[in-house]
Amino acid sequence: MLITEARDYVVEKLPYALNPKSIAVVGSSRLDGKVGFKVIEGLRKWGYDGRIYPVNPRAKEVQGLPAYPTVKDIPDEVDLAFVAVPAHVVKSVLKDCVEKDVKIAVISTSAFKEIGREELQNELTQYCRDNELPLIGPNLVGMGSPYFHFNCGFIPYLPVPGPVAMISQSGANLLAALGTSQEDHLGMSFFVGLGNKADVDFAEFIKYADQDPNTGSVAVYIEGLDSPEAFIKAAQESSKPIVVIKVGGSKIGHKAAFAHTASENPESDDYYQSVFDKAGVIRATTWQEFLDDALALGLMPPLRGDHIVMITNGGGSGLLSCDHFERRGLPLKELKEISPLLFGKIRNYMPMFGSPLNPVDISGTATPIQYRGAVSQALRDPNVDCVYVSICPTAVTDVNEVADQVIEVWNKNKGSNKPVVMECQGGKECHDIILKLRDAGIPAYPTAEQAVNAIVALRDYGKILEAKEKA
Amino acid sequence: MLITEARDYVVEKLPYALNPKSIAVVGSSRLDGKVGFKVIEGLRKWGYDGRIYPVNPRAKEVQGLPAYPTVKDIPDEVDLAFVAVPAHVVKSVLKDCVEKDVKIAVISTSAFKEIGREELQNELTQYCRDNELPLIGPNLVGMGSPYFHFNCGFIPYLPVPGPVAMISQSGANLLAALGTSQEDHLGMSFFVGLGNKADVDFAEFIKYADQDPNTGSVAVYIEGLDSPEAFIKAAQESSKPIVVIKVGGSKIGHKAAFAHTASENPESDDYYQSVFDKAGVIRATTWQEFLDDALALGLMPPLRGDHIVMITNGGGSGLLSCDHFERRGLPLKELKEISPLLFGKIRNYMPMFGSPLNPVDISGTATPIQYRGAVSQALRDPNVDCVYVSICPTAVTDVNEVADQVIEVWNKNKGSNKPVVMECQGGKECHDIILKLRDAGIPAYPTAEQAVNAIVALRDYGKILEAKEKA
Repeated sequence: MLITEARDYVVEKLPYALNPKSIAVVGSSRLDGKVGFKVIEGLRKWGYDGRIYPVNPRAKEVQGLPAYPTVKDIPDEVDLAFVAVPAHVVKSVLKDCVEKDVKIAVISTSAFKEIGREELQNELTQYCRDNELPLIGPNLVGMGSPYFHFNCGFIPYLPVPGPVAMISQSGANLLAALGTSQEDHLGMSFFVGLGNKADVDFAEFIKYADQDPNTGSVAVYIEGLDSPEAFIKAAQESSKPIVVIKVGGSKIGHKAAFAHTASENPESDDYYQSVFDKAGVIRATTWQEFLDDALALGLMPPLRGDHIVMITNGGGSGLLSCDHFERRGLPLKELKEISPLLFGKIRNYMPMFGSPLNPVDISGTATPIQYRGAVSQALRDPNVDCVYVSICPTAVTDVNEVADQVIEVWNKNKGSNKPVVMECQGGKECHDIILKLRDAGIPAYPTAEQAVNAIVALRDYGKILEAKEKA
Repeated sequence: MLITEARDYVVEKLPYALNPKSIAVVGSSRLDGKVGFKVIEGLRKWGYDGRIYPVNPRAKEVQGLPAYPTVKDIPDEVDLAFVAVPAHVVKSVLKDCVEKDVKIAVISTSAFKEIGREELQNELTQYCRDNELPLIGPNLVGMGSPYFHFNCGFIPYLPVPGPVAMISQSGANLLAALGTSQEDHLGMSFFVGLGNKADVDFAEFIKYADQDPNTGSVAVYIEGLDSPEAFIKAAQESSKPIVVIKVGGSKIGHKAAFAHTASENPESDDYYQSVFDKAGVIRATTWQEFLDDALALGLMPPLRGDHIVMITNGGGSGLLSCDHFERRGLPLKELKEISPLLFGKIRNYMPMFGSPLNPVDISGTATPIQYRGAVSQALRDPNVDCVYVSICPTAVTDVNEVADQVIEVWNKNKGSNKPVVMECQGGKECHDIILKLRDAGIPAYPTAEQAVNAIVALRDYGKILEAKEKA
């Protein structure tokens, strides 16, 4: 339901959604497979150390914990109520929450607006707004944060800690992102599924993310914007980069988006594009780009110019990158155009037959010391804005040691405020190195197009900041 | 150097490049790190059971094998000569090979046309052509096949067996593909790096692939086409789908492609597009698409119509797919438009609140039996051309069992000649399932865009065949 700007009382209470001291699980269940069971199981499995109060009028005990007939019967303050009861019972649970002075309510139950029950959903929203009880959901999968060992919902994974705040309207895609986080070390500060977003909206979580010390970038998965004005304002005011993906734009997707999270897409894609332009956010096209951009934006400073130097030991991966840079409208410049003296300096770190172009091909025989030298020289050159390092695992490449050297160079030169992005194309060895680089704070990717997309996103954010600074 | 069509004597001798009974390694080395050392190490490590003859005038023994001063001194027939000696010595080695009646020569040495020594390279080519000794390379990384336990070159990985023949002009990208093959079970029939392709060209390997019983699809990485006419003819005559990626098309890429594999790109991208259109090949844009398309084309029959039914347990992944289908010009049709009766049949396998649209959302609670039923119904419906199955790992999804059920349904319905493509978005669990599905012959991918691209490639191949059938 419409808000015109992020509401202060909501933003102030959002910490209770991600770091509550006590939780009432309403509709808690003794049956494995039920949401009400999974929530408590998940909280415990991932190390939640607050207090859990099952609410179930037909049980004295749930999963070894004393159960209470209603929220009101809990003999303690309740920060968060997680509600997983049938749709028609939700209203009375919310009334109990208001009486109990619960800080925030989260409703996982579905079968509201997305199946035509808009009136019922709006009634709940209005009731919560009248009583300043923020409501997250309904029809949502859950939320959590690896920093608080907090995993609350219908969620089998906790992501690895890192800079990305993931705010998603889709549960399934949120789950996918969390799985990817574990598998590919896409570090997250927190995540939340907003579902139908009857009350709490994107704007409020964007504002929360801006204040959250663990968050470096904000990733927002959007099916529909109920409150574009609030979104624009919150995004404009954010001091952190925001990347969005908007889905349901296809003809057949309109219907599906409504059925999924009751999202209405009355407007054309041009309309959404204009909202995103006004908001000053980066828009990803594909899911992979969305994740990759968010990671780069979370780990690296913005890219403040077009002088990108690529250093590689494989001509082919250099070419794939050149082509993709050009497709994305950020063509690589020649090395001599970027910095007349740089090649002379890099030359010391490559064989005679290496290529003096950009990409700088230091050849398939490049050693870790040669990589270190070439990357250092490029990073220290005042004419260079960004260094893009690619490693191809040839039979003589010590991929692991190259990564260690680049990490050291990056740590020494962080103060330069120039982004470093890496690509390591190949199999298990490369995957392991990508994890290591990401853990060390360097965005690294398994294909040229992913790394290039990430650099383009960093440049887009640089341009957004430049426009803000001019205004 | 120009050929106007695939030469018979070359195609007939190519089996010696991938399944030789005896190999002379010229320039074999006792020093780890040298190409001449790595070749022998690689052959042994991956189980080559033919005879290996090191050639080295300064050693009696190399890696425990008796060494010979020249190829001519080997007291046995030599099928393949792998040459890793300095550029200026190559000519005399080739003379020895001709005298010895070696079947095929492979030159890994670089520093030929790509650094300006075109004359020297052409001289070698002409000599080999005059003597009908096919020459692969120079400036190449190697070749191999998992079916023959054969890994010959500068190559740390052998791919897993499967349908894709990988013909690459770039060594580094070939290595990346082989690593990906191991890690992501992108099965290959054989692979070869062509390097500067002074003599043997794409056309001849395309023809070899057409005759190779292990090959289901051909993937060709192209930096430059020296012999477009031969390429077009070989591709037109191929009974197997061919996917290409053309790199070096960017402005800065022209120079880099020349420095890399001496490829000249005098023509515009329109020129290459017209070559590919005439040839009837599928063109991928990005590296990921190239690999993903090749796998789908190798495993599945062509897609003969636009009636694609998507079955998913996650609305969000359905939406990402819808949007990407539309971006790629193959929008999903509504279920009732595809088949008026199908929804009634699928309805039995989904909860009341599941979505009757396409994507068919059988909901986050979908069981393996429900998946099985829905997929079976769709696959058996005569109006359906392709079934696209997506699994989102919710807390209650038995991803593994769903995959098993789909594999069973696919095996029962292979005769229908309709492609089945899968998507499983998420972390380690999904990655493992993707490997299982691929091993079972079903192309499966970790993102919606990858699966959709693969389906579009199958449709493109269907259209290519339809055009051929009409002509």
